[in-house]
Amino acid sequence: MAAKMLRPVSLARVVINDPFWNSWLQVNRGQVLMHEYRMLKETGRIDQYRLDWKPGQPNPPHIFWDSDVAKWIEAASYSLATHPNRELDRLLDEVIGLLGSAQQPDGYLNPHYTVVEPGKRWTNLKDCHEMYCAGHLIEAGAAHFNATGKRALLEIACRLADHIDATFGPGKRAGYCGHEEIELALVMLYEATGEGRYLKLSEYFINERGKRPHMFDEEACARGEEPKDHWAGGDYRYFQAHVPVREQTEAVGHAVRAMYLYSGMADVGRQTGDESLLAACRTLWRDVVGRKMYVTGGVGSSHQGETFTRAYDLPNESAYAETCAAIGLVFFAHRMLQIDADGRYADVMERALYNGVLSGLSLDGKKFFYVNPLASSGGHHRQEWFGCACCPPNVARILASLGQYVYSTSEQALYVHLYVGGQVRMEVGGQAVTLRQEGNYPWQGRVRFTLDLAQPGKFDLMLRIPGWCRRYAIKVNGQAAACRVQKGYARIGRRWRSGDVVEVSLRMPIERVAAHPHVEQDAGKVALQRGPIVYCLEQCDHKVDVRSIRLPDKAGLEARLQKRLLGGAMVIEGVARLQGWESKGSLYQSAGRAPGQPAKIRAIPYCLWDNRKGGAMAVWLPRA
Amino acid sequence: MAAKMLRPVSLARVVINDPFWNSWLQVNRGQVLMHEYRMLKETGRIDQYRLDWKPGQPNPPHIFWDSDVAKWIEAASYSLATHPNRELDRLLDEVIGLLGSAQQPDGYLNPHYTVVEPGKRWTNLKDCHEMYCAGHLIEAGAAHFNATGKRALLEIACRLADHIDATFGPGKRAGYCGHEEIELALVMLYEATGEGRYLKLSEYFINERGKRPHMFDEEACARGEEPKDHWAGGDYRYFQAHVPVREQTEAVGHAVRAMYLYSGMADVGRQTGDESLLAACRTLWRDVVGRKMYVTGGVGSSHQGETFTRAYDLPNESAYAETCAAIGLVFFAHRMLQIDADGRYADVMERALYNGVLSGLSLDGKKFFYVNPLASSGGHHRQEWFGCACCPPNVARILASLGQYVYSTSEQALYVHLYVGGQVRMEVGGQAVTLRQEGNYPWQGRVRFTLDLAQPGKFDLMLRIPGWCRRYAIKVNGQAAACRVQKGYARIGRRWRSGDVVEVSLRMPIERVAAHPHVEQDAGKVALQRGPIVYCLEQCDHKVDVRSIRLPDKAGLEARLQKRLLGGAMVIEGVARLQGWESKGSLYQSAGRAPGQPAKIRAIPYCLWDNRKGGAMAVWLPRA
Repeated sequence: MAAKMLRPVSLARVVINDPFWNSWLQVNRGQVLMHEYRMLKETGRIDQYRLDWKPGQPNPPHIFWDSDVAKWIEAASYSLATHPNRELDRLLDEVIGLLGSAQQPDGYLNPHYTVVEPGKRWTNLKDCHEMYCAGHLIEAGAAHFNATGKRALLEIACRLADHIDATFGPGKRAGYCGHEEIELALVMLYEATGEGRYLKLSEYFINERGKRPHMFDEEACARGEEPKDHWAGGDYRYFQAHVPVREQTEAVGHAVRAMYLYSGMADVGRQTGDESLLAACRTLWRDVVGRKMYVTGGVGSSHQGETFTRAYDLPNESAYAETCAAIGLVFFAHRMLQIDADGRYADVMERALYNGVLSGLSLDGKKFFYVNPLASSGGHHRQEWFGCACCPPNVARILASLGQYVYSTSEQALYVHLYVGGQVRMEVGGQAVTLRQEGNYPWQGRVRFTLDLAQPGKFDLMLRIPGWCRRYAIKVNGQAAACRVQKGYARIGRRWRSGDVVEVSLRMPIERVAAHPHVEQDAGKVALQRGPIVYCLEQCDHKVDVRSIRLPDKAGLEARLQKRLLGGAMVIEGVARLQGWESKGSLYQSAGRAPGQPAKIRAIPYCLWDNRKGGAMAVWLPRA
Repeated sequence: MAAKMLRPVSLARVVINDPFWNSWLQVNRGQVLMHEYRMLKETGRIDQYRLDWKPGQPNPPHIFWDSDVAKWIEAASYSLATHPNRELDRLLDEVIGLLGSAQQPDGYLNPHYTVVEPGKRWTNLKDCHEMYCAGHLIEAGAAHFNATGKRALLEIACRLADHIDATFGPGKRAGYCGHEEIELALVMLYEATGEGRYLKLSEYFINERGKRPHMFDEEACARGEEPKDHWAGGDYRYFQAHVPVREQTEAVGHAVRAMYLYSGMADVGRQTGDESLLAACRTLWRDVVGRKMYVTGGVGSSHQGETFTRAYDLPNESAYAETCAAIGLVFFAHRMLQIDADGRYADVMERALYNGVLSGLSLDGKKFFYVNPLASSGGHHRQEWFGCACCPPNVARILASLGQYVYSTSEQALYVHLYVGGQVRMEVGGQAVTLRQEGNYPWQGRVRFTLDLAQPGKFDLMLRIPGWCRRYAIKVNGQAAACRVQKGYARIGRRWRSGDVVEVSLRMPIERVAAHPHVEQDAGKVALQRGPIVYCLEQCDHKVDVRSIRLPDKAGLEARLQKRLLGGAMVIEGVARLQGWESKGSLYQSAGRAPGQPAKIRAIPYCLWDNRKGGAMAVWLPRA
């Protein structure tokens, strides 16, 4: 790892105590984890590891059930890392025991290919998610070990990884998974174990991807099938396997897969220092965030294949913007942030986290969005579960691991990426430092840091000045500090002493945000954003149809903290204008024909919509 | 047929001589018909009737090739009706002879099922287009007979219709086609022959549609297939066969099929006076034009299945709006217009004709749009031909038969639906009348009519006052006439004499058109329309990126006739404003951040775009 790179401060060192996040994290630990366990149990996903399914019986273990269980284990492990809980610990051990009992003598572990299609292991890497499932299990194993120190699942993961390593690679079988995931997982396993083979295997999968003759064609032929007749035959952009990864310049195909691949590429690049890989990551990053990302941080605009489409194609009501894809973007952003120490990555990480990720979970922790549109006619609602249940445990694991996204350290600096209240203990420049963060972010822009050091020490405190912030002020021990902002961070270098207080004040006006002119679907519209929070109008706050509301450029808007609303939220209120419509039954009329009436509006944070009475919703508001 | 209904004045009685249409119709007769014949010949569609394809040979006759040939024959026949042409007449006879030679002794005619899949006739009505092809052949037969008086193709069509009638119906096989078309064709055949069985068979197909148990399921079972596994299995909305037609209240599924079905329903309702059928037509009409139609008259917004989607879902750049669907909407509108004598149908007919239909053909007659988006990033262009070649001959037949859409008569009235210059001879109230129409529509709103009668006669001249027109004036023999406008027509009732002159003047300002507030994709935008013509900005007229152009509400716009541009066209010019963008590489920025510069714009008629240098295009312009 290059010395100039950042290292995230690990989860166990970060205590979150934050007026915004506390309730989300409590709900995640208290409600979400147990709700998901029940769903996993009820749907047979846990009991599949008993390997007692017989042909002819209903509900056979599905090819990607393992990933749901593994992500839940990972989430529960993160929860244990910060909030020990004997009952959850015991439940985890039980599930891990069951899972281990399903591992085959050679290390292979996958109930579907053990009981439903025995003998067909690794015959269809393109479509059957075997390594994807293995990857999630590996992440879970590393997370469980990191959190608890227990080695049971880590060893299961290592045996599975060893089996894969013995099967695939130079001089062995050529192959890689159609659904990326194992690449980043193997780097995590390498970091947990120090075993270099895992990093090498990840690098192999990444380097092999997209080579010709194409492995997906070859395995189809080996099955006696015509590659072209097979699903997506010949067009491997869907899998980001159309060309080798270093030749990929545009984000294409299935968005979650893309995010996981790019994250894995960043991981391998970070560990190996491979600049060609990192250069590809940066190019792909620019394409994603500069041409294909919703203002909410959602990515992958099309329902058809859950894919990226052409640049600047960001339909609102038919947006796909899968919760998992926004989570994947956080992963990718977080990795690039460590590599380049550039606040632009943190800006995107924050945008996705506070908007397109959080929208995935209901306030009561019982329902989930898989699809996150930016407009609705009223028919889109969260659900308790999904047949393809990737999103619920993905939300659980990112919330349970939030702490690891907040801070990083470098040789001589402590970076604050996110304004999340609590306390962190870490070493900077050989010095143990405790930093307390207090504020009411994202509703207010004032955040206060208090330092605690065993003895005075010199290092840089790097405070992120978010991209959305145009005016800010920093005080050190009550005195205005002039700091240089470089790559999105204000550098405060000094000899720190216990009791030093740093206050940052980020001006947080209501912004009308415009999209790039090439985004045809947002042209003529603005979105309301305040701080990192993107707002929307929800029908239940309005007497008039929210789809008829037009926002005059000069309409006065005010932010008001509503303590009783949606668990306490800053809303934006003002008077907009209705688009008049006199031609009943007609789709078109002269624009000037019916002057609109004024209409009171209230905008709520996008992430909180659909927690009350179902109805229409709009993020982008046409200008009056 | 109910007495109060209108009757179209038939094609042969209408001579078109019009500054706008002359060049389109000349190109259609001179270029399009022969280009299409060559393509039909080159691709094997003509020679398939030799029935000499053998298994193992390339290029087997496709299941819907017949329809392309038949629509071309129909178009060529219409051309002969108005412009006799010995060479074309001879070519038609030759093709018809070849086609007849492929008819089987029992009347069946379809090369695919004769040589490629013999023995499989009528085994998959849902997917295989057999009756659809038959329907087009029947339309061609009737059109050829009406145009030339020749019976060869009519008799082929009758034998085929008789074969179908002998196979399907009460007490025979139950069935109807997955792609509607034969319903309207059989009514046309009934009208050409007076044979009531054809009307009854059409009525049978319409009444049978959507009944349970479902015929599509039953035929799948008969083939030994599981209906649910089959394409669109179980969800028969795609085919408008989900419920019986009188229970259908929303336009769903494949848009061209829907238009053809509704047209056939209107035909049967018109002929039988079945009010329940006409009521269903009116309900479906309101859904199409009030919730699902582009401002260009395009319908069917989705590429996925070429289908209608939910109400008010009208994406611009990804619009499908197939040329054939707009043509189908003209068919449907024209039929409803005769039934209800209401100008709202004529408004839609005109909107589709001058915009979403004409856009289907290049000015030189050599290229076609299948898909008609309302915005483009520059990658969408007309093509010479398509593998699925329905649109080119459909454009040819509607242009060649334009005359029949212009006038209708009722007992005591002559209706002018479209302002198309030329001359028409007809009978009104037992009196032979010749009417000459002169003007420069759609560029100018002044149209002059001169009447010629053998002797003075009393009848009503009904001049359409288009829905887009808010001020108009009518003079009779130079004197202002106060006319009552009812259901979209100004009634001028008097005792007419030869030499009477009626002048109508329709005020035709440039309008900024807004879409219904529920059309999320057009919110905050306006389209420019002048008269019936919808405008667009095309990249090649602009130095700045047209996608960055924003139109201030107060920007002055002027219409200018450009004789040398695009064959002579009224363009709209003015000064708009660029959307500034300072954040290079970024998708979002504060709306007020970069004030835009003024930018000269020129809007051209939508139907004429992509006739010059390829580039971006936009119909809906965001307001500045």
